[in-house]
Amino acid sequence: MDIATFMGIMVAGGLVISSIMMGGSAAWFINYPSFMIVIGGTMGATLINYPLSDVVSVFKVTQNAFAQKTQPVNSMISTLVDLAKKVRRDGILSFESRLSEMDDPFLVKGLQMAIDGLDSRAIEDVLTTELTYLEERHRLGADIFSTMGTFAPAVGMLGTIIGLVQMLMQMEDPSSIGAPMAVALLTTFYGTLMANLLFLPISGKLKVKSKQEVLLKQMVIEGVLSIQAGDNYRVVEQKLKAFISPKKRDITPDANYPAKEKQAG
Amino acid sequence: MDIATFMGIMVAGGLVISSIMMGGSAAWFINYPSFMIVIGGTMGATLINYPLSDVVSVFKVTQNAFAQKTQPVNSMISTLVDLAKKVRRDGILSFESRLSEMDDPFLVKGLQMAIDGLDSRAIEDVLTTELTYLEERHRLGADIFSTMGTFAPAVGMLGTIIGLVQMLMQMEDPSSIGAPMAVALLTTFYGTLMANLLFLPISGKLKVKSKQEVLLKQMVIEGVLSIQAGDNYRVVEQKLKAFISPKKRDITPDANYPAKEKQAG
Amino acid sequence: MDIATFMGIMVAGGLVISSIMMGGSAAWFINYPSFMIVIGGTMGATLINYPLSDVVSVFKVTQNAFAQKTQPVNSMISTLVDLAKKVRRDGILSFESRLSEMDDPFLVKGLQMAIDGLDSRAIEDVLTTELTYLEERHRLGADIFSTMGTFAPAVGMLGTIIGLVQMLMQMEDPSSIGAPMAVALLTTFYGTLMANLLFLPISGKLKVKSKQEVLLKQMVIEGVLSIQAGDNYRVVEQKLKAFISPKKRDITPDANYPAKEKQAG
Amino acid sequence: MDIATFMGIMVAGGLVISSIMMGGSAAWFINYPSFMIVIGGTMGATLINYPLSDVVSVFKVTQNAFAQKTQPVNSMISTLVDLAKKVRRDGILSFESRLSEMDDPFLVKGLQMAIDGLDSRAIEDVLTTELTYLEERHRLGADIFSTMGTFAPAVGMLGTIIGLVQMLMQMEDPSSIGAPMAVALLTTFYGTLMANLLFLPISGKLKVKSKQEVLLKQMVIEGVLSIQAGDNYRVVEQKLKAFISPKKRDITPDANYPAKEKQAG
Amino acid sequence: MDIATFMGIMVAGGLVISSIMMGGSAAWFINYPSFMIVIGGTMGATLINYPLSDVVSVFKVTQNAFAQKTQPVNSMISTLVDLAKKVRRDGILSFESRLSEMDDPFLVKGLQMAIDGLDSRAIEDVLTTELTYLEERHRLGADIFSTMGTFAPAVGMLGTIIGLVQMLMQMEDPSSIGAPMAVALLTTFYGTLMANLLFLPISGKLKVKSKQEVLLKQMVIEGVLSIQAGDNYRVVEQKLKAFISPKKRDITPDANYPAKEKQAG
Repeated sequence: MDIATFMGIMVAGGLVISSIMMGGSAAWFINYPSFMIVIGGTMGATLINYPLSDVVSVFKVTQNAFAQKTQPVNSMISTLVDLAKKVRRDGILSFESRLSEMDDPFLVKGLQMAIDGLDSRAIEDVLTTELTYLEERHRLGADIFSTMGTFAPAVGMLGTIIGLVQMLMQMEDPSSIGAPMAVALLTTFYGTLMANLLFLPISGKLKVKSKQEVLLKQMVIEGVLSIQAGDNYRVVEQKLKAFISPKKRDITPDANYPAKEKQAG
Repeated sequence: MDIATFMGIMVAGGLVISSIMMGGSAAWFINYPSFMIVIGGTMGATLINYPLSDVVSVFKVTQNAFAQKTQPVNSMISTLVDLAKKVRRDGILSFESRLSEMDDPFLVKGLQMAIDGLDSRAIEDVLTTELTYLEERHRLGADIFSTMGTFAPAVGMLGTIIGLVQMLMQMEDPSSIGAPMAVALLTTFYGTLMANLLFLPISGKLKVKSKQEVLLKQMVIEGVLSIQAGDNYRVVEQKLKAFISPKKRDITPDANYPAKEKQAG
Repeated sequence: MDIATFMGIMVAGGLVISSIMMGGSAAWFINYPSFMIVIGGTMGATLINYPLSDVVSVFKVTQNAFAQKTQPVNSMISTLVDLAKKVRRDGILSFESRLSEMDDPFLVKGLQMAIDGLDSRAIEDVLTTELTYLEERHRLGADIFSTMGTFAPAVGMLGTIIGLVQMLMQMEDPSSIGAPMAVALLTTFYGTLMANLLFLPISGKLKVKSKQEVLLKQMVIEGVLSIQAGDNYRVVEQKLKAFISPKKRDITPDANYPAKEKQAG
Repeated sequence: MDIATFMGIMVAGGLVISSIMMGGSAAWFINYPSFMIVIGGTMGATLINYPLSDVVSVFKVTQNAFAQKTQPVNSMISTLVDLAKKVRRDGILSFESRLSEMDDPFLVKGLQMAIDGLDSRAIEDVLTTELTYLEERHRLGADIFSTMGTFAPAVGMLGTIIGLVQMLMQMEDPSSIGAPMAVALLTTFYGTLMANLLFLPISGKLKVKSKQEVLLKQMVIEGVLSIQAGDNYRVVEQKLKAFISPKKRDITPDANYPAKEKQAG
Repeated sequence: MDIATFMGIMVAGGLVISSIMMGGSAAWFINYPSFMIVIGGTMGATLINYPLSDVVSVFKVTQNAFAQKTQPVNSMISTLVDLAKKVRRDGILSFESRLSEMDDPFLVKGLQMAIDGLDSRAIEDVLTTELTYLEERHRLGADIFSTMGTFAPAVGMLGTIIGLVQMLMQMEDPSSIGAPMAVALLTTFYGTLMANLLFLPISGKLKVKSKQEVLLKQMVIEGVLSIQAGDNYRVVEQKLKAFISPKKRDITPDANYPAKEKQAG
């Protein structure tokens, strides 16, 4: 579980709820029709905006925002450096039998193409195309959430206008406008709340996770091409470490070897 | 029919209508002059902004947002891989007679140029130029809707200011401002409604559909160039599958063959 | 006259005026000082933002938004294809005498350079530089209008704040705030009206017209380079038709020949 | 003095002042504490946002928005064409003695490198790097003003909220809220005024002036490279005139020769 | 300490506080629950949006906005020019022993690769990749602050809506709405204050500092490649000075030599 997403929802939700409880009855903030119109209007606009299959798949994508996938950047570097060492000793064909032990399908694909004897430009083309469209699909998930974050406050405002018109139409005693006006404001409250404490930050988290994965895959591309070109493993290491922060570079290889061994052993 | 667009309009429209009905008379929300000024002002601004022919053609483009065109990504891959197999057996000239049986004019054009013996750079140039300007024309449709989505709330606000000025000018009894103020708010209601539940999401759907079509055409370009270069069909398959999600790649070729046979048979 | 610009102004203007007339006296919406401050403030900000010569030249540019220049895309293709035919028969030097009969100075310039024997890279450089800076100058016109569309509502709001402060300062009887508040709102009305029904859509139209002209000139560049390279006229045709929509490609050449003959005959 | 900047400030300022005078006492709009908080808050935010040296240097940059530097585009073309003529007659080394007579340090630098025998790629590299970072420094000035134009209204709103809270806290008689509310609005007035009639348009003018200077320097780069390559002076002329509007190209060389002679003579 | 950040916070904070004190009791603006909801909601949204480790590391990054790191641009130029002189006399291998005396790890890395005999394209690749991802990590810090600057006012508005609903729900006497409405406004006040006088300007300062560092590193890349290529030291100097403002170029080398000697001596 991504602890930050969880903590964020707890902190923000808890403060909103306690702020509601402290100032009066929580029931004032619960209004099913208002809730329905904001959720329904936002979902409706989203369905007009995106294909059904994309909207459905968003629920799966949302898990990414909550799931904690350890990004094994350092272990990936160790794996690739290790492969670079072995390739000079045993030749690239010796990897054939080990491919099935590797976890990362992207790395496997790249190595398989190298073993098959494709030239480096073709390998780079295929892997880069794959990465481009992976980014595109990731972006779709983030875009749907950010679109919902744009529609939710607009639909909330729409609900508030509906409430205001209804209130104004039957207003007889100006001093009695309190409660209906409060109810009219609730849709704006729901819309703003969902947009700013759910949709937009989840969209942001999906973008961050996408970037991490793309970075990892760019390292794989760089590494596979270097391995195929027969670069010295020290050069491969230098090239790959350029991707990460200097602070994270001083890894004791041993600490990462178990993970690596499991993958590339 | 694109089921998501339909569902979205049903859900959003249904909730807005029921929310209007529940709170009082639906007649409160019907005001023809207000409706006229929002529709008319938005159309007027759009006509100033775009050539007449473009605005007219938008009505045809709108159908795209509602039409369900199955994107035969997998069947296109099968078709291209199949062509890659045949070209090595029969030579590219053997395709001449089959061109008329193919559905996709873009593919036909690409193959025709290959048969005519143009070099690969010229083919790539022509097809890429065509794709660039196809995207440009698609974008125009999406842009017109997104422009309408920008003007509609602004025109709605304009109508509300007109209503407020008229109300303020003849205000005698402050307690009687309810109904005229409600009417003044209606143009903002219409403008916000049209922008957020119609224009902007339709613009978004057109963009998504354009991306799908562009993706398909990029695969055709990649495929035609690979076929012309005489790539092994396994390489062609790998190159093309890089465009799509890994999950969708494990297609049983048989399931797609009927569709393919119809096109390339 | 660009009919869409004209229609748009008629429709939007007519609806605003009739909406004003229907709700009361039109005189309520006429206030010269308010009008002066919005126009003057917007012009003032625009003059600070742009050189005087650019602001003055905008008035000439505005005509483009109203002028109907038929974009002879198809006739340009015919002209270029025709030249491609002739160049293989008569050589490029034979065009020298015909240059004076051609309408398009950009085409004439390109051909002249080809006749002068400049190599294709130099021709492409000069024509592309010219096109880049043409776009730049076009963009300037659109930018000035879009800047005015940004300043107008802000100046309108400024006027409204001035009016509100004056009203609040001399407010004695709360029930008498109607008329001064209505007057204060007028500057916001003028600013929003001018921005959304004039400045922003005109800026948009200028952008669209610029795109059309740039497209035409890109076809000329492509065509001149193809002609110089001695491409077969069918190839030239294919390259040029890639720029336009498939629907518009099935032109009966005859229908366009008169136009072409006039230019290139 | 840039006459447009001056006129703009006169027109906009004059109209705001007369609009204030016509509606009541000008003293209503003068409130030193409100003025202090807007100016101070904006300056404070700007100082947090930019290094002190950059903020200080902005005052020098501001002069650019007011200074009228004639952009000698045509005279620069004449100078460069003239040099192109001479280089074929006398050789590039003959320019050595004339460099000190030339006004433009950028041109001098380019010619000096050509005289020193650097190859054209190195010259282009150095001049382009210099131009890139010149643009960067220009952009900094425009960015600081546009940042101030973003912070000023926000700080104005902050001041208004402070005023509203103070008014609401001591409100006893609802009919007496006029004056304090007017005062609360003044910070929003100052913030909006400064942003829209000063900071944002000055930022815009600085951008325009930067573009003009960059255009001139791009012509110098193109010209120096052409001169070094020994291009015919007619080709140089054609290349350089591509940068400017066709209307401005039909310059009678004589009219410009005095200016040119002074520089390159 | 970055004096501008410090001054900015003093000036803006001081004016806000004095403006609060002058208009009444400062206690009116202190409301812990309101403060909690704005801080907590903003932090919550930020935690949903970014990984925990990134949010934590922001506190370290914030120091950069306050720290005064002298950017030794001129001393770096002297260092590199000096190296360019020595490399022609002693050869690049002679630098080996001096690397440990140099301060800049990026320069050391570049020189080490040159000493190791990597070709210039590989060196450029590694250093550029490193710079790209350094920028990426810098941008993350600026992005987190700018995200907080977006969420803070939204959360503030959310708190105000909660306060308004609570006020409206228990409103009995319209004349008693003063104090609760003032309290409701406080969350908007806090949100706007934090966004515009802290989060957004700090985000801006981090961007500026990142640009300065990137500029310095680009000079190092250019310099190392020039040194490896054996360029004359005058050429190296010219190339490097192109990065900085002409005004800063006329440095008396002597003034910088001590700094340089310390590094490269």
